Amino acid sequence: MAKETARIEAFSDGVFAIAITLLVLELKVPHLGEETSGSALLHALLKQWPSYIGFLLSFLTILIMWINHHGLFNLVRKSDARFMFANGFLLLMVTATPFPTALMAEYLRTPAANIACAIYSGFYVVISLAYNVLWYAATHGKHLLAPEVSEEQIARTRHSYQFGFAAYLIATLGSLINGYLGLGICAALWLYWSVQVYEAGTERHS
Amino acid sequence: MAKETARIEAFSDGVFAIAITLLVLELKVPHLGEETSGSALLHALLKQWPSYIGFLLSFLTILIMWINHHGLFNLVRKSDARFMFANGFLLLMVTATPFPTALMAEYLRTPAANIACAIYSGFYVVISLAYNVLWYAATHGKHLLAPEVSEEQIARTRHSYQFGFAAYLIATLGSLINGYLGLGICAALWLYWSVQVYEAGTERHS
Amino acid sequence: MAKETARIEAFSDGVFAIAITLLVLELKVPHLGEETSGSALLHALLKQWPSYIGFLLSFLTILIMWINHHGLFNLVRKSDARFMFANGFLLLMVTATPFPTALMAEYLRTPAANIACAIYSGFYVVISLAYNVLWYAATHGKHLLAPEVSEEQIARTRHSYQFGFAAYLIATLGSLINGYLGLGICAALWLYWSVQVYEAGTERHS
Amino acid sequence: MAKETARIEAFSDGVFAIAITLLVLELKVPHLGEETSGSALLHALLKQWPSYIGFLLSFLTILIMWINHHGLFNLVRKSDARFMFANGFLLLMVTATPFPTALMAEYLRTPAANIACAIYSGFYVVISLAYNVLWYAATHGKHLLAPEVSEEQIARTRHSYQFGFAAYLIATLGSLINGYLGLGICAALWLYWSVQVYEAGTERHS
Repeated sequence: MAKETARIEAFSDGVFAIAITLLVLELKVPHLGEETSGSALLHALLKQWPSYIGFLLSFLTILIMWINHHGLFNLVRKSDARFMFANGFLLLMVTATPFPTALMAEYLRTPAANIACAIYSGFYVVISLAYNVLWYAATHGKHLLAPEVSEEQIARTRHSYQFGFAAYLIATLGSLINGYLGLGICAALWLYWSVQVYEAGTERHS
Repeated sequence: MAKETARIEAFSDGVFAIAITLLVLELKVPHLGEETSGSALLHALLKQWPSYIGFLLSFLTILIMWINHHGLFNLVRKSDARFMFANGFLLLMVTATPFPTALMAEYLRTPAANIACAIYSGFYVVISLAYNVLWYAATHGKHLLAPEVSEEQIARTRHSYQFGFAAYLIATLGSLINGYLGLGICAALWLYWSVQVYEAGTERHS
Repeated sequence: MAKETARIEAFSDGVFAIAITLLVLELKVPHLGEETSGSALLHALLKQWPSYIGFLLSFLTILIMWINHHGLFNLVRKSDARFMFANGFLLLMVTATPFPTALMAEYLRTPAANIACAIYSGFYVVISLAYNVLWYAATHGKHLLAPEVSEEQIARTRHSYQFGFAAYLIATLGSLINGYLGLGICAALWLYWSVQVYEAGTERHS
Repeated sequence: MAKETARIEAFSDGVFAIAITLLVLELKVPHLGEETSGSALLHALLKQWPSYIGFLLSFLTILIMWINHHGLFNLVRKSDARFMFANGFLLLMVTATPFPTALMAEYLRTPAANIACAIYSGFYVVISLAYNVLWYAATHGKHLLAPEVSEEQIARTRHSYQFGFAAYLIATLGSLINGYLGLGICAALWLYWSVQVYEAGTERHS
């Protein structure tokens, strides 16, 4: 049984590691025309800044998701089919991350920016939905959890995933008003979670 | 000996994880012409729906194949050369999955749809053939199986793989009549197997 | 010490698994012009046969190389810097495999076929050189090998790697006369090794 | 706790293995025009030499970084949030390696060569910064290190990372004067470190 979870974790880790590494394929070397001076190259590289933002945001997101996934599996001892399907749904979304990232980077400086950012944020609505489903599958009936996990810990994790869902929903609505507003909310969320993870880690080991 | 199987499993898991993650490379950001309004972007994204269908179907397929592979290896204790080659043939097909998927997505809305869908379904005929061969290699002489595996379990697994082979053959013939018919049969099969896996998992842990 | 080898093996396995899975990226969906009938698609797919040959040959090659690598590491207990660099050189060549494969597939039906096939075969000359170097690094001084490895086994492995080097050299020279001749020698070698691996495996477990 | 470090190592190893294997995607098969003779192919392949240099340099760099990462983790027993973020920052840079490599290869023979090489070397300034940060996170307070690690070993490792930072800074400034000068300094560094790793390994096992 423990072995079963181990292989799911190893497979998931593999998918996370590959997805985070494939993001670099969206960074394209700019092709200059006739004029290949150093300043033209610098200018062309700077014009690509939405790609770098996209790369950084998505890298940080997948890293936080991996740490989260990791933390969630630390509380789980057994696996059943519902849990495996919920995990499969989450992995589906993780592997798809490069697509909305590239879309947002491509259209951030066009009139389609709001729609592109709304799709980008909306994608994370679905991902946080996947985390809620996975946590529901893990806790429902409670026979999958480690015995030491308390009711209070279950509720706290659930609330934190529900907060993520609501926050991304607001980011998506914000994007429809202004793309940068939506992205700003996303970035603020990642900053907030990074601090949380950081403090949790510091606390745990002090 | 047990170690031998462990490395084959780890290698296979790696190939499955990479193949499932590479599928996203088939999702291309649409390039709009002059008119980059939000509605033009939405329209272009929606026009790409066969790519999304292909991505979802192939993701689900590789996931089910992984779970199946996993289940098969749970019954196996030792490995020999025939078994390793049979597993290599299966991995060859798994890594190739993105190709027929992209082909089907590209031609689903053209007059070549039936041929494209027949190739897509025919590809799974070969994959289910690979599972049949792998199971034959595992069970022939029975010295590779775990001692607790019963004759009845061997026969049941064999019948289930034979059923898969026949069903995909029908899907391929169906595709030649109408591409959507073939795809529908494939989707129905995956739904059926998902339910089976789900129930097997629920049963096992209840 | 044993742990050291374990991480090198795991890293190498990862590189093999990724390299073998990336081969599929060389299979491109054909783009038809105006006429998108089923027969035009079939015709375009068939015209791509050198890509399929390249995919199959390279998949089989990497698989055999992985099994070989595996077998070699079974005889090794410790690692030193020379062995790690020799293994790094081998991995460099393994990751590069998709490049000569694509080159050969692209130019097999052009007047440049002989040169393309000579580069393809010549690439395997360097790979078999890498195996010779790795085996030299493993056996020199013999403090890295498992104690049960006999002098006779060391010599047999060395001769088999030397044979590979010479055979690929002949394939490269053959390619310069006629590309298909060189490819044929390569294919014959893989067939021969597959049979060898197969028989070794069968023997070991009977 | 030990388990925690094991999963971080496995995840990092996965990222290193994938990043090193993705480098091959920058090697493009040249497309000849009308004239597809063998000599035209050879000529086109030779004209691509900056790509091969880039591939070799980046492969060797990631390999050395992996060996370094490996050595660093051998001294570490526990993990905390700061250490995990520092490792995440390093992995971010590792996954990005193919981008500056491709940039340098594309512009090495153009007037933009100095800027391209300065970006390439400057990228390694940031990577060596990441190693310095990681080592600071590992040693600060010293509760993460294995008990047998001496003060002297900590200082020696810190100095070696500081040396790397300074050396890459010089390579970057050198690139601004002449791109080849900067690349030469980078190559000399890798040669120097390879010899160091080699000797350390030889010593350790003799």
